[in-house]
Formats: sequence, C-alpha cells, structure tokens
Amino acid sequence: MITFTKMKCTGLVTEKTKEGYLEEGIRLYLKRLQHYTVIEWKTKPGNKKNTHEAQLLKTEKDWFFAQMETSDYVVALDDRGLELNSLELAHWIEQKNQCGKKRWLILIGSAYGFDPEVLSRCDARISLSKLTFTHQMVRLIFLEQWYRAHTILKGESYHHA
Amino acid sequence: MITFTKMKCTGLVTEKTKEGYLEEGIRLYLKRLQHYTVIEWKTKPGNKKNTHEAQLLKTEKDWFFAQMETSDYVVALDDRGLELNSLELAHWIEQKNQCGKKRWLILIGSAYGFDPEVLSRCDARISLSKLTFTHQMVRLIFLEQWYRAHTILKGESYHHA
Repeated sequence: MITFTKMKCTGLVTEKTKEGYLEEGIRLYLKRLQHYTVIEWKTKPGNKKNTHEAQLLKTEKDWFFAQMETSDYVVALDDRGLELNSLELAHWIEQKNQCGKKRWLILIGSAYGFDPEVLSRCDARISLSKLTFTHQMVRLIFLEQWYRAHTILKGESYHHA
Repeated sequence: MITFTKMKCTGLVTEKTKEGYLEEGIRLYLKRLQHYTVIEWKTKPGNKKNTHEAQLLKTEKDWFFAQMETSDYVVALDDRGLELNSLELAHWIEQKNQCGKKRWLILIGSAYGFDPEVLSRCDARISLSKLTFTHQMVRLIFLEQWYRAHTILKGESYHHA
C-alpha cells in the first residue's frame, strides 16, 4: 500500500547537474521516492559562467526567496547544520511532518554556500557530514537519505542500523 | 608537474558495484586520482547471493586478511570511526604518509559492516558521516574525498572551505 506523508517536498538546486552519472542517480532516487511521498526537483535557470561569488549568492538568494511560501518548512543543506544519524533524521522528518507546514523546501546551494539572509529565513539547517562534498554530489546523497528515512518510517528493510 | 605521495593506495570492496551510475563516478575519480597518487581498486570475487550474514562476514574477513601485508596502513570505513572534516582528513593523510608504511589499504565493507577481527587489525577507522550511506555509494564518496584531500595538499582550488 502506498501512503503519502502530509508534507510534500521540493528540492531547489542552483544549477543543472553537470555530471551525467549523478543526474542518473538523482533520477533514480526521485523515482523511488515517489512511492513514499510527493517530491519535486527545481533547478534555477539562467546561470552565467564566471559570475563573481557575491553576485552569484545574490541571484541565488533572489531565486530561493521567489520559491518560498509562508507555508513552507525551509531547510538548508549546510555543513555547519545539525548532524543526525539516519534513524534520527527519519524521526526528525516524522516529527516535522506534524508541524502544520504544507511543504518541505530543501535548499541546496552552490560551492559558495548561501547568502546569510537565506540562512536566516531557514527553519532548520542540516549537515550531511563534517566532510565537504561537491554541491552536485550533495543532491544524490540528500535524496538517498530522504529515501532511506521514508523506508525507516515504513519499517522496511533498506536500512541496516 | 605530477608528483606521487610516498604511499600508494588500494581500495578493497567486497562485491561488484551494481549501479552503473556509481560505477561511472568511481571510474571518474580513480582516473582523476592517478594524477596525484598510485591507486588501485580490488573487488572480492565469487560472492553468492543470499549468503547468511555471519557466513558473509567470515568470507569477507578471510579475503581482507589475504590482501593485507605487514607494510600496510589499514583503514576501515566505518560509521563509528573518526569523524574529520575535509581539511583535517587531508592533513591526517599527509601525516600518515610519513609513518613508514608502504600502502594505504582501505577496507569498504558490505551492508553488514565488518567482522570484529578485521576491525581489530585496522590501524584506523574513518567515518564519512553520522548518516549511513549505501555501501555502494560509500565507494564514490570515499574516492571523492581522497581526491579532494590530494588537491588540498597540493594547494589547488577544487576545495572551497
């Protein structure tokens, strides 16, 4: 039986996934997740090459804010965020699913991170590791964890503790 | 100019990488790493499907021990291991490169982890995250970090702190 969690989830990424193998993995987990929750993936259009860091963060900030609604629970993936293990993450998601918000908005920044105003708006910051991953690889790692969390909450055998 | 670190590196994985997109990413980082260090990748042959957990860990243990030499610095990737950030990992590698051993032997276990005897033989245990990743994805994440560490040690711009 397929059941849906209350909140849908939108992942926001600031540029196209360049590496084909990552794009394939991302598509795979987006497809798997559709059996558990409503998930969509949005890419910021119109990035210019060689944009200066400050200008890049500003245009990304404007785009992030344009996507946000007051009914969103906004989470930035940020290496200075909350570090949880996979079981804790699953139960954290379960708890927040009851918070009365309509949608998870997951912000995945570029190599330079986030404008401070974006971080101020976030309801939570989650760290995937103390290690720095490529901002492209973070997408795959996040989706695999989001998928893993949903299998944990459904009592399925994907996760070995 | 291409320079080689003193110790070469051998990654040991206990079964074939099943997902094509991960295999592609792994090949990509192995290729990139060859500009910085001598790296090889070995897969345990002959895994049978539906092997019982205890039997699987025993055959993996036997295979790991068969690969080890006394001149190896043996590291298990283990989620209860040492957690470092990418800069710390780079400097840890640099320091251990001077320890007099000839080769890094990196053990990447299966979904059930490692036999305790294997962990007892290891010189170090490294954790990539508090989160549990798939044992197949760990390979890609490890190689990207090993690559990142080498670019950090060479003062290159791949890593944004």
